[in-house]
Amino acid sequence: MNKIGYPQGSAPAGITPGGNPASRGQGLEADINDSNLWYRENGKCLVYKKPTPVQVVHVDYPSRQRARITEAYYKTPSTTDYNGVYRGRYLDFEAKETRNIRGFPLNLVHPHQIRHLEQVERHDGIGFFIIRFTARQKTFLVDAPLLIREMKACSHSSIPYVWFEEQGVELQEGLYPRLPWLAAVDRLYF
Amino acid sequence: MNKIGYPQGSAPAGITPGGNPASRGQGLEADINDSNLWYRENGKCLVYKKPTPVQVVHVDYPSRQRARITEAYYKTPSTTDYNGVYRGRYLDFEAKETRNIRGFPLNLVHPHQIRHLEQVERHDGIGFFIIRFTARQKTFLVDAPLLIREMKACSHSSIPYVWFEEQGVELQEGLYPRLPWLAAVDRLYF
Repeated sequence: MNKIGYPQGSAPAGITPGGNPASRGQGLEADINDSNLWYRENGKCLVYKKPTPVQVVHVDYPSRQRARITEAYYKTPSTTDYNGVYRGRYLDFEAKETRNIRGFPLNLVHPHQIRHLEQVERHDGIGFFIIRFTARQKTFLVDAPLLIREMKACSHSSIPYVWFEEQGVELQEGLYPRLPWLAAVDRLYF
Repeated sequence: MNKIGYPQGSAPAGITPGGNPASRGQGLEADINDSNLWYRENGKCLVYKKPTPVQVVHVDYPSRQRARITEAYYKTPSTTDYNGVYRGRYLDFEAKETRNIRGFPLNLVHPHQIRHLEQVERHDGIGFFIIRFTARQKTFLVDAPLLIREMKACSHSSIPYVWFEEQGVELQEGLYPRLPWLAAVDRLYF
């Protein structure tokens, strides 16, 4: 079981662990950020990762120019990691990766993320998850209302891998963009 | 000239400078945050302020539980302050206040905010500004493409106040929500 870490390390340019010239070995978050940048620069959609919220306790002002934060703590985000716009519609999603072979552990999704994505649905926005099974090198895009319903009905601590094969859209990694999640959005919602 | 400060102080509950039981004396950012909370809790729309981005340089781990950031700096945001969803559509806006009586100083809007709102328009999202003239106690919602066009055509360092009276929608402050900006969105875009 492996949550997306913060801060997220990414492979140095030119070094591709596993020998695959695409993205293999880079974390899911880095793959998505790279893809979002490519989508923005090519005018496909406008999606950003939200900054990690920080509770600032003390700030020094060594010069007039630059405030230096000397004590701060990470806060739990109240929403998901990514949002933006595509063809006028509101997009909102959360990315999770797990090393678990057999399924997706429910405790990777926080209650406030579920509540947030339920509200996105209520306001007719497009909400989904991007889930990577790192040990299998498989990544799926899944509709948020569908996964949340499954999580609430689930009596175990995880949702079996096969459910994602049946209900998700598999994202094949490529070069540009690295993780073509927008094609899956087209297929599911437009 | 006064940019929205960070961190933003808000008046303690029950104390209303100026004797107005509504919001007078509170900063624009606090008014908008209060209103967004009211809109969320009443299921009207789902809009959040994005966290202020922070560049973390050093982190201590005094315990396994809590990472303590000991050196960090505020970063310039690459986008606007607020975004979210209303009736399926993507909303994106920036809030600015000025003490200037005669007009709105152009340098209050950063080039990256202009570029971002131009991209929002290109993707058919709804982008706007909420501008407050504090000395006049007047607040307007203005369409972003309209204001950006005016800024680019403007040969002076500010846009006259009267332009906002003619082109903006005035927001009358109230109790719930404090700053009813969504009504202006209905009027302009739906």
